[in-house]
Amino acid sequence: MIIDIHGHYTTAPKALETWRQRQIAGIKAPALKPYVSELVISDDELRETIENNQLKLMRERGSDLTIFSPRASFMAHHIGDFEVSATWASICNELCYRVSTLFPDYFVPAAMLPQSPGVAVETCIPELVKCVAQYGAVAVNLNPDPSGGHWTSPPLTDPYWYPLYERLVDYDIPAMIHVSTSCNPCFHTTGAHYINADTTVFMQLVQGNLFKDFPKLRFVIPHGGGAVPYHWGRYRGLALALDKPSLTEHVLGNVFFDTCVYHQPGIELLTKVIPTENILFASEMIGAVRGIDPDTGHHFDDTRRYIEATPLTATQKQQIYSDNARRVYPRLARALEKKRR
Amino acid sequence: MIIDIHGHYTTAPKALETWRQRQIAGIKAPALKPYVSELVISDDELRETIENNQLKLMRERGSDLTIFSPRASFMAHHIGDFEVSATWASICNELCYRVSTLFPDYFVPAAMLPQSPGVAVETCIPELVKCVAQYGAVAVNLNPDPSGGHWTSPPLTDPYWYPLYERLVDYDIPAMIHVSTSCNPCFHTTGAHYINADTTVFMQLVQGNLFKDFPKLRFVIPHGGGAVPYHWGRYRGLALALDKPSLTEHVLGNVFFDTCVYHQPGIELLTKVIPTENILFASEMIGAVRGIDPDTGHHFDDTRRYIEATPLTATQKQQIYSDNARRVYPRLARALEKKRR
Repeated sequence: MIIDIHGHYTTAPKALETWRQRQIAGIKAPALKPYVSELVISDDELRETIENNQLKLMRERGSDLTIFSPRASFMAHHIGDFEVSATWASICNELCYRVSTLFPDYFVPAAMLPQSPGVAVETCIPELVKCVAQYGAVAVNLNPDPSGGHWTSPPLTDPYWYPLYERLVDYDIPAMIHVSTSCNPCFHTTGAHYINADTTVFMQLVQGNLFKDFPKLRFVIPHGGGAVPYHWGRYRGLALALDKPSLTEHVLGNVFFDTCVYHQPGIELLTKVIPTENILFASEMIGAVRGIDPDTGHHFDDTRRYIEATPLTATQKQQIYSDNARRVYPRLARALEKKRR
Repeated sequence: MIIDIHGHYTTAPKALETWRQRQIAGIKAPALKPYVSELVISDDELRETIENNQLKLMRERGSDLTIFSPRASFMAHHIGDFEVSATWASICNELCYRVSTLFPDYFVPAAMLPQSPGVAVETCIPELVKCVAQYGAVAVNLNPDPSGGHWTSPPLTDPYWYPLYERLVDYDIPAMIHVSTSCNPCFHTTGAHYINADTTVFMQLVQGNLFKDFPKLRFVIPHGGGAVPYHWGRYRGLALALDKPSLTEHVLGNVFFDTCVYHQPGIELLTKVIPTENILFASEMIGAVRGIDPDTGHHFDDTRRYIEATPLTATQKQQIYSDNARRVYPRLARALEKKRR
């Protein structure tokens, strides 16, 4: 079984974006604010956007199951206040949940959180509880920079975040670290902000001692861990200089990297440098890079091809494709176990 | 000949830091502001800090010449106003110049600029002119984020920066893109901010068309190009999606990566993915990562070892060690030619 742990609903019906535009317009002009009930998307519409996109590609590329969360760039936690984020998160999470009920063999939901810059993170817990308890979410996406490229929140090692971590540990679900759209013109969203965030958070974890306080907390750092595996020597050296234990001991019990690296040499470096136990298969398909590589004739984000072409053993590939995901996402493992019975 | 294009004066006599602390204290309490003349560092002191550090390691590791600029983390352009930066840049540049006159066979200066957030970049030109015309500087370090981690300046493709670029093209000198200390607690200086800046600026160049306006402008992106070579597929795909020419055509005529990547697999990826013509030997020795790798018994930043261990041909190694530097830094090439006569 091949589990893609990093899928977003990037192909939602146009009505979602239209509703969001009205919500944004309503921030400045409350008379324009739409009701949630004005957003009507039928099951057939959901089916169509999935069958012709994600599901089609999953079948073509041979992946079996996707952990599916709202479109990352649309989270845009910097827009409006907590109320705006709460309404928006609720809508987006419900859509992913509905996709998971329409295609129960193919999609399992993960939740976005209604973060808002400067607002206590406790405010996210009711949505988290609903998504896990009612929707069966197996993970959340955690935005380390809800300001959208201004980095005004404290590092993820700060006690500011602890109330959320307590709940994640209670529920035994991991958080994928994932920023959203950059509203800082210096940072291109998918070409700089995403990758920078991955690198930034990893280094916060090296600097801090978060997993002393939360030994069972688990973070997934997407996009192949940003710059980290490429600069693994730098991080090993910095951990030494900061008088930390080895990275293996200090962070690799709790931190996992996905395989959203869109060329062969990148995947080869990742799988050579990072222990196999810490690598999770993912493509983020129909995401940042949707084109076909003219050099190979295949989609850049068809990451399975790269993994297949590595010298990893069959056992290692199975760890990356499936076993590690079941370990890091135990609620997913239990859901799969239940289905089998 | 082996040219290390990325060295900073990280070992300057303690008096320099003490003077800077007094200068910083003087921002709030003008009575404490020191005179420049109060900073007295003898030639013998300079000699000692170089002979026992950079020069010793250059001899041990077998590099012949270093392009030597002020300590990057000490530039701290976010501190004080333009006047503070101008005085500080002038002092630091003069020290690197003095080192180059004391050890003319081993060090060639590159200049820091007196940048200050929100100040017109034209203000940096007098210092640049002095450093090139009087000190023989062969390059400058350009900070894309003088705010120190808040990224308040426009992208490097913005006309804000053009007056500086015009001068760089006139002088035929490259700019190394190099941020300084992060004063944003989210970003560790050498573990996140440096690497993020490299990635960020590369993506700005992919998004923009800067080299249409300045076909002869050259940027060196240090630290192995941040995350870029590891995510080369992502950048190739994003260029396609943005309707840009191939990266080779769009940026690689003007952008060069150094070899400050502190482990073997990283250097192997860099040299496999990026054309040899675009790679410049560098170590940034006695910099971010000063320790010895317990796995190899060698310094993390002894990058020559990694390059030696790649399957590159002797010709390719010579390009990386020397030929490319002469091409990218023509004033260095001319200085070396002069010495030979």
